[in-house]
Formats: sequence, C-alpha cells, structure tokens
Amino acid sequence: MSGTPKKTEIQTQLPDLFASIRAAHDTIRDGIHPTPVLSSRTLMDRCGASGLWFKCENFQKTGSFKLRGATNAIRSLSAEEGERGVVAHSSGNHAQAVAYASLKAGIKARIVMPKDSSPIKIEATRGYGAEVSLCEPDLASRDEVSKRILTEHGSVLIHPFDDPRIIAGQGTAALEFLEEVPDLDVLLTPVSGGGLLCGSSITARSLRPDIQIIGCEPENADDAYRSFRSGKLEPASPRHTIADGLRATLSLRSLTLIRALVTDIVTVPEEEIVPAMRTVWERMKIVIEPSSAVVVAALLGGRLDLRGLRVGAILSGGNVDFGR
Amino acid sequence: MSGTPKKTEIQTQLPDLFASIRAAHDTIRDGIHPTPVLSSRTLMDRCGASGLWFKCENFQKTGSFKLRGATNAIRSLSAEEGERGVVAHSSGNHAQAVAYASLKAGIKARIVMPKDSSPIKIEATRGYGAEVSLCEPDLASRDEVSKRILTEHGSVLIHPFDDPRIIAGQGTAALEFLEEVPDLDVLLTPVSGGGLLCGSSITARSLRPDIQIIGCEPENADDAYRSFRSGKLEPASPRHTIADGLRATLSLRSLTLIRALVTDIVTVPEEEIVPAMRTVWERMKIVIEPSSAVVVAALLGGRLDLRGLRVGAILSGGNVDFGR
Repeated sequence: MSGTPKKTEIQTQLPDLFASIRAAHDTIRDGIHPTPVLSSRTLMDRCGASGLWFKCENFQKTGSFKLRGATNAIRSLSAEEGERGVVAHSSGNHAQAVAYASLKAGIKARIVMPKDSSPIKIEATRGYGAEVSLCEPDLASRDEVSKRILTEHGSVLIHPFDDPRIIAGQGTAALEFLEEVPDLDVLLTPVSGGGLLCGSSITARSLRPDIQIIGCEPENADDAYRSFRSGKLEPASPRHTIADGLRATLSLRSLTLIRALVTDIVTVPEEEIVPAMRTVWERMKIVIEPSSAVVVAALLGGRLDLRGLRVGAILSGGNVDFGR
Repeated sequence: MSGTPKKTEIQTQLPDLFASIRAAHDTIRDGIHPTPVLSSRTLMDRCGASGLWFKCENFQKTGSFKLRGATNAIRSLSAEEGERGVVAHSSGNHAQAVAYASLKAGIKARIVMPKDSSPIKIEATRGYGAEVSLCEPDLASRDEVSKRILTEHGSVLIHPFDDPRIIAGQGTAALEFLEEVPDLDVLLTPVSGGGLLCGSSITARSLRPDIQIIGCEPENADDAYRSFRSGKLEPASPRHTIADGLRATLSLRSLTLIRALVTDIVTVPEEEIVPAMRTVWERMKIVIEPSSAVVVAALLGGRLDLRGLRVGAILSGGNVDFGR
C-alpha cells in the first residue's frame, strides 16, 4: 500500500473530503429525489435496537443511490468533456444511473453491459437514451470494449466507484439521512466496490465522530471483509451471490478510506438474503433488491449487538425484475 | 328496493353522512397511520393524465385501509358491548384489522376464517391476539360458525362493509387524500362489498361535487358492475379472480349509496391484474396486493379517457404472501 495515505492522513483529509460531499449535494440536488426515511417497529423489535431507520434509496430515480454519484460526476465534466460523451461499464444500477444523468445533462452515454445482463436493465438503460454495447461476461472483454469506445470517441470513463466525484455523490445519501435523524449510534450500508460505504463513512465520521459504521457484504462475495482484515486487496470470491450489485471488489482508494473510517465489515450467509428481502417486502410494503437485503440480513441475523442503540441503514436500491 | 332511500334522499342525507366521516376521522386518528400520497411520472404518462396521485393504504397498519373502518366500529362500542367482545368473518384484511383494533382497545376478538385462508393471514390474525375459528370455505358454514359464537358470547358482529360505522371509517382515506390533493378531477377505488367505495364517494362528492368517482372491479367478480347498471343486487360471478379482496358482493345499503354517488363502475380483464401489480412493484418500488392492482389496471388499460385530468387512486392494501 505504498503511496496511499495512512489512517492518520485520511483523518487529516476528512474535512476536505466532507466538503466535497457537501459540494456534491449542492451540485446534484435538483437532479435527484430527497428519498424518504422510513422506520419499522417490527424490524426494530427483531433486531433489539431502540430505534431503526431506513434511508430508502430504492425510491431514488432510476431505482438506486447510484444516481447520486453519476449525477455528480457528469455535472462535474467540462463542456469540452461533455461534447465527447461518457462511457460506463455496469450490468445494472450504475448503467441506468449514468444513462439517466447523461440524458438529463444532454450528454451522449455509451454503456458497456455484459451479454447476460437482465434484459429489463438493458432495456431501461436504452430507454434513457444510452447506446448499449454488449460484451462477454468477463473483465477482459469488458475492458476491451470499454477501451475501444474510449479511444474511438475520446469519451470520459465514469467509473462505478473508484472516483472521488462518485464517492462524493454517494456520500450525499448519508448526509440527508443524518440531517433527518442526527443522533444515530450505528450506520449500516452494503459494500461492493466501496463507493457508497466510503461516501457514507466520510459523512458519518465527520458529523458523528463516534458513530459505528458497518459495511455489510454477502459471505459469497466477501473480498471487502477479507481486505479490511488483511489490509491488502484480496481477490474476489469465486462463489455466486444473488446480491448481484455486490459482486465488485474494492479498489486501493476505497480500501484505504474504509480501513481509516469504517468500524467493521460483516458478512451474511447467502441463505439469509432472500428471507430478509421478503421480510421487508411483506412487512414494510416496499420493494428492495437483494443487495439492499444484505443490510437487513445483517440487522436480523443476531450477530450484531444493537440492543438499545439507534440504528440507521441505507437501503441502496429496488431494482428487481419480477418477470423472472 | 322499496324501503331504501332514493338518489335524491341520499343527496339530502349527504351532509350528515359526511359529518359521520369527519367524526370517524377524529375517533380513529391516533389509531391509524396518515398514509403517504405518492405519484409516479411513468404511470401518469402511460394513462395520459395531467396528474396522478396514489393514496397508499398499503402502508396502513395491518397492511390495508380496513383498519380505518374496524377502528371506528370498535371505538364506537359501548363499554358493555366491549365486554362481550366482537366477531368478524373474513379471510383476509378485515380479519387482521378487527384483530388489531380489538387488541389496541383491549377487547376480545373472535374471527371466523375459511379453512383455505392463507396460513400467513391466519397467523397474522392470531398474532394480534384474536381467537380464530376455522370454517368451511362457504357462506353457510361461515354464517353457522359466526352465529354460534355470537349466541354463545353475546358478541357484537363487526361486518366488513354493511355497517355505517365501517363505511364512515373507510371514508377517512379519501378525506386525507383530498386534504393533501384538493383539486382531483377523478377518484378511483376498488369495489368489493362497497365499504371503501361508499365512504370515498361520500367524502369526495361532499368536498368536490363535480368529481368523477369510478369504482374498479375484476371482470371475474363483476357483481357491482352489473348491479350498478340493473339497479338491483346481482349475484356473485361464478368465476375466480386473483384479487381475493374483491370477491364480496354489494349489500342493499352499499348499492343504494353507489347508485346515488358514483359516476361509473368499470371492470378490468383478469389477465391485466398481475401485470399492473408488477408495474407498480417495479416502477414505484411499493408492494400492492392484487385487489389494489385492479385500480392500476383500470388506469393503464386505455378504456378510461383521463387525458388532461388530475387523477387520484386509492391503493387499498399491500398484503401479499411472497412465500407462496
């Protein structure tokens, strides 16, 4: 990890990092929904917390928090960069977010999606006016197709998480959350590449220095859990998880921020994800996707001691293909 | 229909009927959720309306609007009636509503449910402390079991819709709705026994005399549609509908109110109900049950001319058993 900032350096940078989140909120405010915060007595009782609130990014435009980062990144482009258009690679929520934010900004978006992406997500991305290029479902093909488009059009790559503008945008969800419920003791978010967890941590650690920040990950995609403990970037797990939004692995940037700011990363067994999702559908009457249910599974699994604490959780998205 | 009031008589009674709804709202206010009103740009565009709002009773406690009427009826009991407890027969939402409202009022509830009711609904009803008696899935058995309990305990029957206190309670959803969006041109609700449609009509016709009030019914359970046209109580359709909350038939009381106050009853083809439900799940990220989806199917089916109109619809409930 030579060349990357140490824990104390991140602490020193924290005011500037948080300023970038406040600036991002001003930048994106009129392009996003200020999503609601909901509570559930049933779930609160089940996890033993004294208060439980959910920041409902499943109600965000395009169905996930990803629009926050995408909008911040795209609105940060120069006029000349905008002319050349943007490229993103994603099988899901980041694709739709970049497509939508580009459409609203009048910028051409080219999205690289794996062939085996959900047809409904490909259709939604095209529906927002993006040009979709399908690639083989592997990293090599994805990078090759992305590189070809970047070279051909001189476009700007909008990375799903390894980008300070994306992290700043994602941190605005926790900002709204803590403005509405300021005295949280614990904040939980899912973790995949780390954009949401990093942004949330910068916000929460700045506003509530003593808050516990917990990243939640499927056991079957536990690279962040392992990397958090080892201090180096661990490879992806070969196992499969239904939480398809959480299959990415950390970057050096996100690992460094997470090691400095996050209290812990916990994993949840694969078989607890769908029941947790159903519990939210049935009890709260809201649709969340499996990646969001990972946080709920962590809440309900009995492995966190939340007794008497005021707990907040970010429900990251609600894009479920019910036709399947 | 001798002995029942004519259209003009209902018009004369309208101020008193509406006063009972305002009174009901005061009675139940601290026992219910003031449910949110949501809009959907996608659905608005698809139905051609200039505005589209949903009153989300799927977020009501116990998962449906039924709690409004049940709470009003139960809070209207005398102390002596309360001592003897209440009886209700229902396979679904009314059962849970009566059980919950009774629990909160410290009153014993005995609920008669058909043997083939969803196990999750039976469990939920028992979970609210009610004593559940199972009957055969036919009217004769239901009435026999209900009568036995009524006789044995001297309990009070809380009818699911044929009761002015129930109708007054159900009318409070439209009251909140029109307080939040006062200038609706059209109001749609589902219709089964008619409690919600009657209550909504009294409210809407009182506050907005020229509003169009449309009851929505599955083609496969179209007795209200036929009764509205013939002016007499038509028998239940023998066909099956997935909208299990809409299988009851009107009473003379509800038919009379509906004929006097409602603009029209429309039916929707059975095969449009599930797709409409999925559209709401996928687009709005909220869980509605098939009975609520009937209203959405009416909105999206292209058979209503809603162009340029400000349209409100009551989403009646969200109790879906995802385990099935």
